[in-house]
Amino acid sequence: MPQDISDILGYSAAFLTTIAFAPQAYQSWKTRNLEGISLPMYSLFTTGVALWFFYGLTIHSMPVIIANAITLVLSAIVLALKIQQVLKKK
Amino acid sequence: MPQDISDILGYSAAFLTTIAFAPQAYQSWKTRNLEGISLPMYSLFTTGVALWFFYGLTIHSMPVIIANAITLVLSAIVLALKIQQVLKKK
Repeated sequence: MPQDISDILGYSAAFLTTIAFAPQAYQSWKTRNLEGISLPMYSLFTTGVALWFFYGLTIHSMPVIIANAITLVLSAIVLALKIQQVLKKK
Repeated sequence: MPQDISDILGYSAAFLTTIAFAPQAYQSWKTRNLEGISLPMYSLFTTGVALWFFYGLTIHSMPVIIANAITLVLSAIVLALKIQQVLKKK
């Protein structure tokens, strides 16, 4: 498999899995409807993305740092809105 | 930064962002309540994870292959349930 095809796959994958959280953050912010969203998922995922961000710092990889910084902000928005919803119900 | 700490960060990040989708897939399967879940997010994310999986094959990296194979199955479950819900509403 030529290196350039492999690179295209990698960059496309990084792009999609990073921007994927934008429509969710936007929908959650606009509708404040987070009924079907799992709090454990966003807690684990946001923590994991934060670790990816620090991992990127330790290996000095800008793509890993930038992609995970963006995903961290987006998933943290959804996590915060979900925590807010759960606290309101108590 | 010693290599082993960097590796620990990387493996922990991979583990968390992979298993994170298990509670969401379980909750969506059990409750069939996918109200607050964004269809565009899961479409983009599942596609992106599939590309990561193929990328792992091209670079012969078992961790990338295994982690993304698991995430692909879990996010595809949520995507399928969300598509089912959207079609039911039409």
